[in-house]
Amino acid sequence: MKKYMHSNDRLDEVTVSTEPIYEGKIISLQVDTVRLPDGSTAKREIIKHPGAVAVLAVHDSKMIMVDQFRQAMGRCELEIPAGKLEKGEDPLEAAKRELQEETGYVCDNIKLLHSFYTSPGFADEIIHLYIAEELRKGEAAPDDDEFLELYELTLAEAEEAVALGKISDAKTMLAVYAWKLKQATGVFGL
Amino acid sequence: MKKYMHSNDRLDEVTVSTEPIYEGKIISLQVDTVRLPDGSTAKREIIKHPGAVAVLAVHDSKMIMVDQFRQAMGRCELEIPAGKLEKGEDPLEAAKRELQEETGYVCDNIKLLHSFYTSPGFADEIIHLYIAEELRKGEAAPDDDEFLELYELTLAEAEEAVALGKISDAKTMLAVYAWKLKQATGVFGL
Repeated sequence: MKKYMHSNDRLDEVTVSTEPIYEGKIISLQVDTVRLPDGSTAKREIIKHPGAVAVLAVHDSKMIMVDQFRQAMGRCELEIPAGKLEKGEDPLEAAKRELQEETGYVCDNIKLLHSFYTSPGFADEIIHLYIAEELRKGEAAPDDDEFLELYELTLAEAEEAVALGKISDAKTMLAVYAWKLKQATGVFGL
Repeated sequence: MKKYMHSNDRLDEVTVSTEPIYEGKIISLQVDTVRLPDGSTAKREIIKHPGAVAVLAVHDSKMIMVDQFRQAMGRCELEIPAGKLEKGEDPLEAAKRELQEETGYVCDNIKLLHSFYTSPGFADEIIHLYIAEELRKGEAAPDDDEFLELYELTLAEAEEAVALGKISDAKTMLAVYAWKLKQATGVFGL
């Protein structure tokens, strides 16, 4: 195995204690005390999140996006369809569910592109990013507190939306990169 | 302006009240009550973060990475050099500082590729991702509670590390995509 793939024991930190701070509807917060490799201790503020799915869905050479308000940013932005995992839910089923709930599109041919952590410095949120092609139109059914508007963007439009900041989140930018790279190389993914 | 670039007033949510829950060293947590477009209210759990910088640094056709332990994930992973903004700090200066502190590399020619939100559903963390080329070796100086190991990966090695999960965070995967796309198209960025 290549050197960079090795587990690096001498960098490991050991959890000494965990102080629960807040248990919310979606996230919880705890402060861990860890022992560092030099024997000293440090505090780590950690957000626990159930994980999420997101879908790079392409229909008629356009990427499916939803416009929605984000309280953390105080404005609307365009994102690929996404949502958090229900307890015990299979990520692939969740991806199909979120795609249909948010956009009405149904897809039987859906596959995992990458799973990635959004903010490893303070959160355990993982997003499973799927690719959906061969879509057909079904019935949308957003959650009660979810107000969305559907858009379908060409690659040029998606790139423009990134340049102008209307697309500005990591998962959606990763999806635009993956889609553009596919057009350059013929395959999705690295 | 294209329709998808419009501000979508009818999706806007209005903040009714904010309940501070926790003020930490790096993040803070608040629960906002918002008025939804249909007049009903909902709770939004929001993490406030000072923002961060990350650097896609290429030297001798290799990408500079650091291996470090991440308490949120319970293991080490390879990431591009990154760190949070100090209060009032210019992001470009922060990017140069983090690159040198974590890797020892100094770069005068550094430019912004993208700024993106990591988790718009619950956090306001924004990462300013810079590209650094023409590096020269200086002196590393990691923070007291930061234990790192430096690696330099070819594109093929970086792709392998993504495939095997040793690279697994959004900013680093975005950097690998940007670097690969550059090799396909000749330019960084979308």
